[in-house]
Amino acid sequence: MKLCRFGQPGAEKPGLIDAQGRIRDLSAHVADISPAELSPEGLARLAALPVDDLPVVEGDPRYGVPFSGTRQFVAIGLNYADHAAESNLPIPDEPVVFNKWISCLQGPNDPVTIPKDSLKTDWEVELGIVVGTAANNVSEADALRHVAGFVVVNDVSERHWQTERGPTWDKGKGFPTFGPVGPWLVTSDEVGDPQALSMWLSVNGKRVQDGSTSTMIFGVAAIVAYVSKLMTLLPGDIITTGTPPGVGLGQKPEPWYLKAGDVVELGIEKLGQQRQDFVAWTGTAA
Amino acid sequence: MKLCRFGQPGAEKPGLIDAQGRIRDLSAHVADISPAELSPEGLARLAALPVDDLPVVEGDPRYGVPFSGTRQFVAIGLNYADHAAESNLPIPDEPVVFNKWISCLQGPNDPVTIPKDSLKTDWEVELGIVVGTAANNVSEADALRHVAGFVVVNDVSERHWQTERGPTWDKGKGFPTFGPVGPWLVTSDEVGDPQALSMWLSVNGKRVQDGSTSTMIFGVAAIVAYVSKLMTLLPGDIITTGTPPGVGLGQKPEPWYLKAGDVVELGIEKLGQQRQDFVAWTGTAA
Repeated sequence: MKLCRFGQPGAEKPGLIDAQGRIRDLSAHVADISPAELSPEGLARLAALPVDDLPVVEGDPRYGVPFSGTRQFVAIGLNYADHAAESNLPIPDEPVVFNKWISCLQGPNDPVTIPKDSLKTDWEVELGIVVGTAANNVSEADALRHVAGFVVVNDVSERHWQTERGPTWDKGKGFPTFGPVGPWLVTSDEVGDPQALSMWLSVNGKRVQDGSTSTMIFGVAAIVAYVSKLMTLLPGDIITTGTPPGVGLGQKPEPWYLKAGDVVELGIEKLGQQRQDFVAWTGTAA
Repeated sequence: MKLCRFGQPGAEKPGLIDAQGRIRDLSAHVADISPAELSPEGLARLAALPVDDLPVVEGDPRYGVPFSGTRQFVAIGLNYADHAAESNLPIPDEPVVFNKWISCLQGPNDPVTIPKDSLKTDWEVELGIVVGTAANNVSEADALRHVAGFVVVNDVSERHWQTERGPTWDKGKGFPTFGPVGPWLVTSDEVGDPQALSMWLSVNGKRVQDGSTSTMIFGVAAIVAYVSKLMTLLPGDIITTGTPPGVGLGQKPEPWYLKAGDVVELGIEKLGQQRQDFVAWTGTAA
């Protein structure tokens, strides 16, 4: 099942993508795709609806984040061996964990604002795990039972603020608009093996990232189990799982970064794709 | 004005502390102390209520976090010159920013669970700033207008996970129960100068921290302005502002840490005090 939220920011309606790729309106059945809908029972209720009877949404509406109520946006760093190498950092022997402030969340195709005085705004296509049921100290064997599904995330990153302004990464990861998520939440049953998904990102039409979740250092189950030892994961939380090689920081012969006017497109097999116009800061975020 | 929430976890009622220190029940007037009540208008509405007509709450109820709806729990590190010294770290020339996962939030006197296999669970009495209105890229001159008030925070920290398990601090700061907040939200007008508050913490009756917000490196207005350049602060968000000297990590001749059975008490002038029993992990957090 592919779930989505469509409409203007703050006024999104719940929807479902049918076999023909059209949005079907769920709002007669649920008020929202909220954490309650992400539980096994909530998903089962939605899966039981007769899709052909749901109204087709005409036109080309904006997508929002495909579910509401995210309380924690956890991120894993350096989770692809080749990306660690391009960052000149050793392959970690356990997951690197950092935070994206949830105020950065936005729809998959909304413009991204380059922060005021930004020096190094960069891209990262990532597989996002969506938590379906609360998880604390769960085993790797049980971990996937706490996952509702998966999303595309662009873990937009400001490298100067991430790595040159103090001992933590959090300064450079959560600027407003730095968390495009969606277009769809694709449920685990429809995704199948989350370690066999191709992924890509292009800047102004030039393909810069081309990878697969098969080369992750720590897979989805290992990540959920590990993070659940450090905190309680809540329904609706997102764990974004790191990026393959090809970010701006790793470009040869020299790193290069995003500027106003650039267009970033990205996608993951089975999970859909995103497109963002990068725009200049003009006093408030886009 | 001193606001609070009292009652069992998940079923707290809103309250107000009267001039005699008694809890007055606000639930006939507001459903909760939520982000809406933290706005200038929301606080003005509560301040206009006739306190003497509100029902007195008898007995000694549990305190919860004094407001609901926190979406981001921002933390500042090394913000007292003496604490930076005891941590063998240089005085930062700009604020160190990290994250506490919001799933660690709990009432001020609830037990704290020492994490499974913890090696170095430590304490930190801190002044918490409570955001009243959204703030992005605000100036230092405007910053305090976005602050609803202040709370006591124990920024409970697991030093091994904070500093020895990778390049970010976030692993060691957000274990379940690591965020006691309260007992009261004291509004800015009642606090007066936030840079003139004495603060203390004791372990098993032994005073270990004894400081004042007057020795902060970056004051409240500077912190709010700085953090608002990195993210959008939302109503109900908390920024905890760092701790004075005397944490376990800084004890002489050797660091020492908390164990099950220890009792931590802490307080800040005008903001009330907290008391936590530290308990062993027994399969789930306390």
